[in-house]
Amino acid sequence: MIYLDNSATTIPEKEVAQEVYKMLTENFGNPSSFHRAGLDAYASLKKARQSVANALSCEEEEVYFTSGGTEANNLAIMGAAEAMKRRGRRIVTTAIEHESVMQTLDELEKQGFEIIRLMPDKAGNISKSQLAGAINSDTVLVTVMYVNNEVGSVMPVEFIKKAVQRANSPALIHIDCVQAFGKIPVKPSKLGADLVSVTAHKIHGPKGVGALYVKKGVRILPLLFGGEQEKKLRPGTEAIPLIAGFGTACDMIGDYATLAQHMHEINAYARQKLGGIDGVKIHSDENASDYIINFYVPVFMTSQTVVQHLSSKYGICISNGSACAKGKKSHVLTAMKLPDKEIERSVRVSFSRHTEKADVDALIHALKETVENYN
Amino acid sequence: MIYLDNSATTIPEKEVAQEVYKMLTENFGNPSSFHRAGLDAYASLKKARQSVANALSCEEEEVYFTSGGTEANNLAIMGAAEAMKRRGRRIVTTAIEHESVMQTLDELEKQGFEIIRLMPDKAGNISKSQLAGAINSDTVLVTVMYVNNEVGSVMPVEFIKKAVQRANSPALIHIDCVQAFGKIPVKPSKLGADLVSVTAHKIHGPKGVGALYVKKGVRILPLLFGGEQEKKLRPGTEAIPLIAGFGTACDMIGDYATLAQHMHEINAYARQKLGGIDGVKIHSDENASDYIINFYVPVFMTSQTVVQHLSSKYGICISNGSACAKGKKSHVLTAMKLPDKEIERSVRVSFSRHTEKADVDALIHALKETVENYN
Repeated sequence: MIYLDNSATTIPEKEVAQEVYKMLTENFGNPSSFHRAGLDAYASLKKARQSVANALSCEEEEVYFTSGGTEANNLAIMGAAEAMKRRGRRIVTTAIEHESVMQTLDELEKQGFEIIRLMPDKAGNISKSQLAGAINSDTVLVTVMYVNNEVGSVMPVEFIKKAVQRANSPALIHIDCVQAFGKIPVKPSKLGADLVSVTAHKIHGPKGVGALYVKKGVRILPLLFGGEQEKKLRPGTEAIPLIAGFGTACDMIGDYATLAQHMHEINAYARQKLGGIDGVKIHSDENASDYIINFYVPVFMTSQTVVQHLSSKYGICISNGSACAKGKKSHVLTAMKLPDKEIERSVRVSFSRHTEKADVDALIHALKETVENYN
Repeated sequence: MIYLDNSATTIPEKEVAQEVYKMLTENFGNPSSFHRAGLDAYASLKKARQSVANALSCEEEEVYFTSGGTEANNLAIMGAAEAMKRRGRRIVTTAIEHESVMQTLDELEKQGFEIIRLMPDKAGNISKSQLAGAINSDTVLVTVMYVNNEVGSVMPVEFIKKAVQRANSPALIHIDCVQAFGKIPVKPSKLGADLVSVTAHKIHGPKGVGALYVKKGVRILPLLFGGEQEKKLRPGTEAIPLIAGFGTACDMIGDYATLAQHMHEINAYARQKLGGIDGVKIHSDENASDYIINFYVPVFMTSQTVVQHLSSKYGICISNGSACAKGKKSHVLTAMKLPDKEIERSVRVSFSRHTEKADVDALIHALKETVENYN
């Protein structure tokens, strides 16, 4: 199998799987218990928190474990809106956020918040001036993703803090870094972020665990109520085997400069080869993340069928958009104002640090045959 | 190590750990993806849902996976209150629920709901007549645990439906079955429940996954917003390795009659032996679950120290109350009106299907020495 759908989920590292197994069999205690089994589990929890904090260049106490990116995004947005609602009602975001951001904001809109959704250009980019124009003194939250999950466009998130300060706004800044974390450096203090969402399964960790960075001194309200875990911001018995696996995945990220060079090579190679297939049109522009290429496939089938065809005939896994949307029409490509016919026939390939040129060659071969046979 | 803290968490079965490992290494896809990796993961998700449904004698489509018992309880209560708030504002519960129920209700109280908290007798029991007296036509939710996590008292949950019908109440019925599931039969339709919370790590499954049963036709609102997963009631990429492990744990529950006989023998044996230690006072009465015994230890140390002493000197793991409360004064023993001195010196032992008489013997030996040396 050639797996080129790493933005949907990644293959866990062997070391991650082994760590999860070890926790399940040898270190099964409840980290809140005071006996040996509990204290051992607590030590592993602390070690994993340190690993995530290292990967984010932040402090341990700023890391709150969640069940994944969706919960981290919900907690950040709902928690910030609830904490800030007396100071204003305006929230600034983009029209191309992940479902878990978009739909949480739809819910807040029903509750009376004013949601400003910035429209991208035709490559999925949002400009600094759009952000500056939207953020005013009534704005209590700005929530923008770092790297778009469908087309890979990179948002000017570092500019948000400047815009917030210029507008004399009390806004908290939330950056959904699910697609950026572990791929490009994500340092909340450098990004000017108060809240940062990350998840394990996009960085070769297990599904079912993520984290929300909450800057020291920033107060948001919890979504779940219960025990004393995660300083009561996220109660519930800690998913300690997954958390430990997340820590291992963070420890394995490696050097960003080396990673960037490899990914840039893969991306450039793929773009060049895709350019050689008649009628293929790449939507991701040259500023996009090297991990994601979204493009139009000139065939009579829709993209879901293309995905199934490439999988069943060639053993190649790619995607027809965000996995979470389960085949619904892409709101990202729609916001980019692509024609319907093109939206319905667009696919996403997404790489990982393990992707090699041979994987790209296999993809190109399969795509070429598919386009020739079914155009 | 002799592990007698199974109400805090259980030791995962080897088969569970192996299933989780297998999913992480061989079946890593996102169940929402349309390629082979995704379809394989989806098949495992469906299989696990069937296993949980079998264990609950309910239909597959009535099972919604969550990150654990705390989230299941929050979703049930918040989701029901939100869906029902136009029909009434009264919620009936007990004063001895788990933190995740209690604190969610405290939150709803702040939002204007009227919370009726029934007080237990001195053994932690709630009577049918208390329930009947509290449920009226304005009641929109009744939330009562099946088996108490600290003292093991069993609530007359099957009576609730009758009381709701007699009062001509529209109330939804939520039963927190976290401590009952996998130990005694939990069949939502027999319990008369609309909503039932369960979790994997109390039945030798992994931490980080649970489920909420939602009776077909019952509508509650989501807590989290995002993708299409779990029919949008619980969005987010499914924690599929844990979910598969949960399924395996459900498949391994075994025959309840055999289980009941073994647990009753262990419980009776432990009670008899505890009765032989001078000054020990058992709080759990003869109607309590066979899995839990809560008792007073006549020493000058508080229970947290007793727990640490038994662990470090004898390798025996017991508890000083709910793990989620991390050593806070027990609200259950307080509601049972025990004197403070007794509350501070009470411990809980909790058994599993793997507990043998030899484990009880070791506990009794350690307790005897501790009481002799430190009374």
